[in-house]
Amino acid sequence: MTTGKQLFTTLAADGTLTVEVATSEFPAPAGNQVLVRMEAAPINPSDLALLFGPADLENAQYSPGKVVAKMPEPFASAARARHGQRLPVGNEGAGTVVAAGEGEAAQALMGQRVACVPGNAFSEYAIAEAAMCLPLGDYTSEQGASSFVNPMTALGFAETARMEGQRAIVHSAAASNLGQMLVKICAEDGLELVNIVRKPEQAALLKSLGAQHVVDSSSDSFMADLRAAIEATGAFFGFDPIGGGTMVDSCFKAMEQVAAARMGEYSRYGSNQQKTMYIYGRLDLGPTILTPAYGFGWTLSGWLLTPFMAKAGMETIVRMRQRVLNGLTTTFASNYKRKVSLEEMLTKDAALDYRAMRTGEKYLVTP
Amino acid sequence: MTTGKQLFTTLAADGTLTVEVATSEFPAPAGNQVLVRMEAAPINPSDLALLFGPADLENAQYSPGKVVAKMPEPFASAARARHGQRLPVGNEGAGTVVAAGEGEAAQALMGQRVACVPGNAFSEYAIAEAAMCLPLGDYTSEQGASSFVNPMTALGFAETARMEGQRAIVHSAAASNLGQMLVKICAEDGLELVNIVRKPEQAALLKSLGAQHVVDSSSDSFMADLRAAIEATGAFFGFDPIGGGTMVDSCFKAMEQVAAARMGEYSRYGSNQQKTMYIYGRLDLGPTILTPAYGFGWTLSGWLLTPFMAKAGMETIVRMRQRVLNGLTTTFASNYKRKVSLEEMLTKDAALDYRAMRTGEKYLVTP
Repeated sequence: MTTGKQLFTTLAADGTLTVEVATSEFPAPAGNQVLVRMEAAPINPSDLALLFGPADLENAQYSPGKVVAKMPEPFASAARARHGQRLPVGNEGAGTVVAAGEGEAAQALMGQRVACVPGNAFSEYAIAEAAMCLPLGDYTSEQGASSFVNPMTALGFAETARMEGQRAIVHSAAASNLGQMLVKICAEDGLELVNIVRKPEQAALLKSLGAQHVVDSSSDSFMADLRAAIEATGAFFGFDPIGGGTMVDSCFKAMEQVAAARMGEYSRYGSNQQKTMYIYGRLDLGPTILTPAYGFGWTLSGWLLTPFMAKAGMETIVRMRQRVLNGLTTTFASNYKRKVSLEEMLTKDAALDYRAMRTGEKYLVTP
Repeated sequence: MTTGKQLFTTLAADGTLTVEVATSEFPAPAGNQVLVRMEAAPINPSDLALLFGPADLENAQYSPGKVVAKMPEPFASAARARHGQRLPVGNEGAGTVVAAGEGEAAQALMGQRVACVPGNAFSEYAIAEAAMCLPLGDYTSEQGASSFVNPMTALGFAETARMEGQRAIVHSAAASNLGQMLVKICAEDGLELVNIVRKPEQAALLKSLGAQHVVDSSSDSFMADLRAAIEATGAFFGFDPIGGGTMVDSCFKAMEQVAAARMGEYSRYGSNQQKTMYIYGRLDLGPTILTPAYGFGWTLSGWLLTPFMAKAGMETIVRMRQRVLNGLTTTFASNYKRKVSLEEMLTKDAALDYRAMRTGEKYLVTP
């Protein structure tokens, strides 16, 4: 047994959310498990959904290592499956293997610095599967902390495009860490990319990375610009991390308008051009709005890394992870606004700041 | 050349919609075309979308054989692809072949009563492809008028379910002509069916046809009833003709709640159960509302008969059409509230009545 601090989030049936740092006992790793002393873990949007969700952090009670906040409806009731459960948080991170099970793969990692995906990365220690650990060699834990979620997701988009016979991708919220990786991946792979951003400075950032097609949704000419970029690239396929609101609708509309302009004849059912969008995040927890403006030739799906990997198979995953390792300080480099300890994570200043999920302002937890 | 009356709909760029009966010249059929003297054609929802859309029929100007109405925004602008085009209307109907091209298939139909899919069925005459004509034998034109759109769509749902490895279907607006056919098809094919209706009398109607699972969306226990029906049937797959509003959202929610209840453990990403819904109509032209309440394991697509048939292939289509013919007065029988001439179609009383698309109140045009 190893003793260490770990972060937990608990939602009571009455909507009271308690997030706190507590002392945990970590069992000795068995089989091909390793025990990792966690040194760095990013706070990703997918972590925030579990950590705080839409809880009222402005009016929460803050004490050292503890936040108690009210979860609004309908979210409190909708999350009834987690009511009363004390859940660990933190998808990914990096640290040093301090104990290993008797399995060969685990033993081989003993003493090494690794990136891992334990699901409780906001912790001093975590048990991880050796097969999911990426040995970092000379890279630091900070450099390796975000080597899984964003890089594998961005690579997963390119793989999904190829699986579906697509040569071009639309990506909204494209100035994110993940979006910046996607710009580089698409350039490397010869895929066309339409980047949708919200601000002129984000457009400038992406263009400085070599992005060819950048569209600013805050511009009056947004829809015309989006149509022109789709016309230029043939991108009838895209990924959206916003979820709520009208971004997916805007993409479908622009795709349909480009396709309709190419048709000779009016069809009451819309064009024959198949249009595909994936929602892979919920930066906006409001409802997704789909208007009847693009016929019936469209598909909208949720997209998640885990089912994608199950579908892609081990060989593809191993190839993708090797590519991440090779580009850890270039294509797949992440930037952080601030480093915080587990206790600093739960101060009002920090929580309000990283929960805003502003582009380029990601936090790194150093337990 | 043959001369006859035909109905046209024209939307001007300023939003003025003109629907009128005019005299047309019909050319002699060539190759494997036939000229059909139309005797009966149903007014389907898909025809109404083109004929009137959401135009203001209450305050329109009616004169013999002519309606002039205002199309509201955003629909007038959204339909810019049809601005100024004088479009024929009427997907399907039945009548007698009075002339045939020199092709063998066309010649074989000469003098016969056939069901056809000309796209201008609201007309005294129509040119149709012989390959798409269904010889009606002893059936009347009224019996054969609706032998394509509804029967092939309902059979297409069952085929799509089988193609995707599904054994159960959720169908909303299930008391429609099409929904009643689907009840019988699923019973014949051993597929489970969850029927969603809006009124107790519709539930009673479907139960009288042998439906096992009927859920009334007007009931206070709708969501609980829907969950129970999904639990009983394993239906994580469905079809919705409403489009706008929250029906698809309710289906996804109920499916996810059933799947989550079966899971041992809470997952922030929702269940692993893949949930699939198709929108095949737009009875409600408002936006489709999707809430973030069912994770990422879902797919929503448009569904249309024509691309389905292209995918299914000719052999499947021939088999489906033969099945329709065999069951034309049983499984695939349609009922009509009223028969109208082309001119009667364009009276205020009739137009307001059939545009309401009330269940069981379909009109038949007898040119």
